[in-house]
Amino acid sequence: MTQVAREVELARNAAGRLVPVQANGRHQRLYAGVGQYQPTGSKAAPPVRSSRDYPASGDKRVPNIETALRLSGLRDGMVISSHHHLRDGDAVALATLQTAAQMGVKDLIWFPSASFPSQAPVIDLMDSGIVHHIEGSMNGPLGDYCSRGKMRGYGVLRSHGGRWQAVQDGEVHIDIAVIAAPTADPFGNATGSVGRSACGSLGFALADSIYADHVIVVTDNLVPFPCIPWQIQGNNVDYVVEVPSIGDPAKIVSGTTQITRSPDRLKIAEYVARFVRDAGIMRDGFSFQAGSGGIALAFVDHLRIMMKDAHVKARFVRGGSTRYLVELLQEGLTDYILDGQTFDLEAVRSIATNSRHVATSPFTSYNYHGKGNFASMVDVAVLGATEVDSEFNGNVVTHSDGRLLHGIGGWQNCLAAGCTILAVPSFRDRIPVIVDKVTTLTGPGELIDVIVTERGIAVNPRRKDLLEATKVSKLPIRPIQDIQREVFQICGGAPQKPQLTDNPVAIVKWVDGTVIDTVWQVRS
Amino acid sequence: MTQVAREVELARNAAGRLVPVQANGRHQRLYAGVGQYQPTGSKAAPPVRSSRDYPASGDKRVPNIETALRLSGLRDGMVISSHHHLRDGDAVALATLQTAAQMGVKDLIWFPSASFPSQAPVIDLMDSGIVHHIEGSMNGPLGDYCSRGKMRGYGVLRSHGGRWQAVQDGEVHIDIAVIAAPTADPFGNATGSVGRSACGSLGFALADSIYADHVIVVTDNLVPFPCIPWQIQGNNVDYVVEVPSIGDPAKIVSGTTQITRSPDRLKIAEYVARFVRDAGIMRDGFSFQAGSGGIALAFVDHLRIMMKDAHVKARFVRGGSTRYLVELLQEGLTDYILDGQTFDLEAVRSIATNSRHVATSPFTSYNYHGKGNFASMVDVAVLGATEVDSEFNGNVVTHSDGRLLHGIGGWQNCLAAGCTILAVPSFRDRIPVIVDKVTTLTGPGELIDVIVTERGIAVNPRRKDLLEATKVSKLPIRPIQDIQREVFQICGGAPQKPQLTDNPVAIVKWVDGTVIDTVWQVRS
Repeated sequence: MTQVAREVELARNAAGRLVPVQANGRHQRLYAGVGQYQPTGSKAAPPVRSSRDYPASGDKRVPNIETALRLSGLRDGMVISSHHHLRDGDAVALATLQTAAQMGVKDLIWFPSASFPSQAPVIDLMDSGIVHHIEGSMNGPLGDYCSRGKMRGYGVLRSHGGRWQAVQDGEVHIDIAVIAAPTADPFGNATGSVGRSACGSLGFALADSIYADHVIVVTDNLVPFPCIPWQIQGNNVDYVVEVPSIGDPAKIVSGTTQITRSPDRLKIAEYVARFVRDAGIMRDGFSFQAGSGGIALAFVDHLRIMMKDAHVKARFVRGGSTRYLVELLQEGLTDYILDGQTFDLEAVRSIATNSRHVATSPFTSYNYHGKGNFASMVDVAVLGATEVDSEFNGNVVTHSDGRLLHGIGGWQNCLAAGCTILAVPSFRDRIPVIVDKVTTLTGPGELIDVIVTERGIAVNPRRKDLLEATKVSKLPIRPIQDIQREVFQICGGAPQKPQLTDNPVAIVKWVDGTVIDTVWQVRS
Repeated sequence: MTQVAREVELARNAAGRLVPVQANGRHQRLYAGVGQYQPTGSKAAPPVRSSRDYPASGDKRVPNIETALRLSGLRDGMVISSHHHLRDGDAVALATLQTAAQMGVKDLIWFPSASFPSQAPVIDLMDSGIVHHIEGSMNGPLGDYCSRGKMRGYGVLRSHGGRWQAVQDGEVHIDIAVIAAPTADPFGNATGSVGRSACGSLGFALADSIYADHVIVVTDNLVPFPCIPWQIQGNNVDYVVEVPSIGDPAKIVSGTTQITRSPDRLKIAEYVARFVRDAGIMRDGFSFQAGSGGIALAFVDHLRIMMKDAHVKARFVRGGSTRYLVELLQEGLTDYILDGQTFDLEAVRSIATNSRHVATSPFTSYNYHGKGNFASMVDVAVLGATEVDSEFNGNVVTHSDGRLLHGIGGWQNCLAAGCTILAVPSFRDRIPVIVDKVTTLTGPGELIDVIVTERGIAVNPRRKDLLEATKVSKLPIRPIQDIQREVFQICGGAPQKPQLTDNPVAIVKWVDGTVIDTVWQVRS
């Protein structure tokens, strides 16, 4: 397969980034600044169905995925969606696309909430023309394929909330949603909280179930109606397919999540926790969100001890949940876990049995085009980044070599928190993380408040309140330029600029659906 | 206020009933037979909103209902919706309309899921032109007002599922939804299961929250975010108003629901239970729905004993829930209660604390324009009626004098059950209940399988399977004409025909949004 060269019109957006004005046949709105774009119009409107066309018994089972696809009217060019709650263990999305391939269709658009290394065989489907392009997060080899300019359409990177927004606003019309369900009933009610492939919340698939023309639930644990609780409602589902296995449980959830052992990263985690305490954020009734990475887990562990010492209880904590959050809940250190995805076995057990561990969706948590969402109510969010720059801008999608290797996840959405902290090592593989200008702008610096490295903590000068609150703290709070200079000295100067062509291969959407930056093809 | 005379074009629908081809300025589709109307087009599409226009803190509180209405852009002719989970105890809907009156608007359309006697002061608002008409169930005085031809617009009677269908399909566009919430948080997440005005499920308000342009939550029990569980999602809510009281708890739920003491009605209940057993419907994993009336409760009590005797367990029972259903759940005689409304204190307690007592909505349970719904999966539904006729047609909205005094509730939707039983006394106030032709056709006879009276049981001749199954039963199964004749003899002949004019005052919708019959003005 040869590389795809594009003649595209580019324009400079409000962040000063050059972005395509059109992508995948759609006009693109330019990023206009935080809170600047005012949407108009109405939400997407799925077709009206009638119960007369569905079995009165409620039994929507069909023998296999092929039958379900055929009955859904599969044809060339359709948009097929999937979710990634089964992570690298998912077997359903790939099986669906491979089944479609056997059925002889081409030019499909795959719209996963995220794709993973185990789905690398989709590269063959793209090479052979069956899949036209992927619109969704691409972790690892699929992102690399896109970076090398081999995908016929643009990659479109969206946050979890941005994906809901795009579906809700009709920017992406899903023809067929295929939902891998750890437990479901013949009517299509489905939950992720129980079953041998249990994954916790199924929130990423909720928009698909509501807005897609056709919805197929695939399960390896069929229960008699009603499947309780249901996060996916059978009233939105067309067909149910039973399969022996929807994935590899060992890769769906971790047996156990692990705190980092790196002394530098442990130090970062400790700094973050102390900052949250010293800035006065850790107070009774507060809330926080932290991811599932090693630093974030260590942060939670530190904070837990500080909360106990200070007799402070959180009102809620946001998942991605792990056993560290579950411990907080069990110890009475938080009233609730509001959980978007469930990372380890302890968390899966908790969401299935503890009514205070509540499954959420990108609609509740992140959709910017709703009447508010949960993200802005979180007092502090602790996130990572592949790069940050001296303007506090963040990059989470490309590496320093310019390759697209990660999705955005909830990262952009979480920037709405009262205080956003990026916890990053000051360098990785001797490449400085604080650069002059991030390769791919994923989050604007005005929303990033604090950057914590093992060599010091930089507070965004816009946040005079945080600087004031931590004036007496013993933490090494320093100007970001100081930390950057020190790291450049250690690493032998600023990092090399990535070798990029002028061929755009993907666009990065902001939470409001505008284009904030472009991913450029890497020079091979 | 003088009576309203209408020049209307009428047409005969597939049930042979004369109905207006236009009502309230909208063209009306004629009832075409069960399962005959095929909808087209797309669901209603609410406006896209942006979090930029909502407080980042999530705090949507405004001082009072007037402010919320003003911010929602209240103006003449708007559609204002409310729900009836607080039943005759509700104080919010009336307060909203009276507030609107003080604000000087007119010609409002009130779109309640049902209205009750305590809301009779809306008659003054209709007389004075503030409310143009009511589109929704009218119980008691408001129905009587409509019957006497005093309402400027048509009453439009819909089932619970039909109301969802109408909102979903865009037949009714709600400008402002006002949701009385027994518990809510400042973001607008709301639940009916706890709080001093607890009423159980809030499912009737769910469509309003999803599809209305503006959504106001009114609560007398504000809790810090997050309100768990939430049945109304704050992401759909614009404003939250705290009031001292949303209603009278004594009229919101019964202290206790009572089994009938009438020997005739107890006999009916026993017949129903025996029929369900003898017809083989009462088997392991079966399901049933029964209302909250005295006969239905007595039926549940009989069935419970039979289930115990036969070691039979239901998979699910449908509410409206009462302590009699709760007992089944507690005794392990059913796996689940799937509950649309919660009638007494025991049931409210149960839904708040028992994860197997699950709140549902008209979307899950009844919406005919979905991908199926729960109603058709129920093995047997036990319902009432004001009249039935020898063709097994049923009437639940008008009395024998032709006055409109009841809403449809879930009655039409429940006719989709595997077996529909109408449990009715053979006469009321010496007026026969089995008539030659029902005054107002609410449900077509082809969906009504069994009529149980204290004088015998009539099985619809279409249901040869039920006749066959009960051939050896000792139950008094008789042709409907026999029972009718006997009752006519007792009561001194067929009942008098109601004295009706040729002025239509309300239309009755079938579950698919078509018009199945007309309510005519009564002769005064």
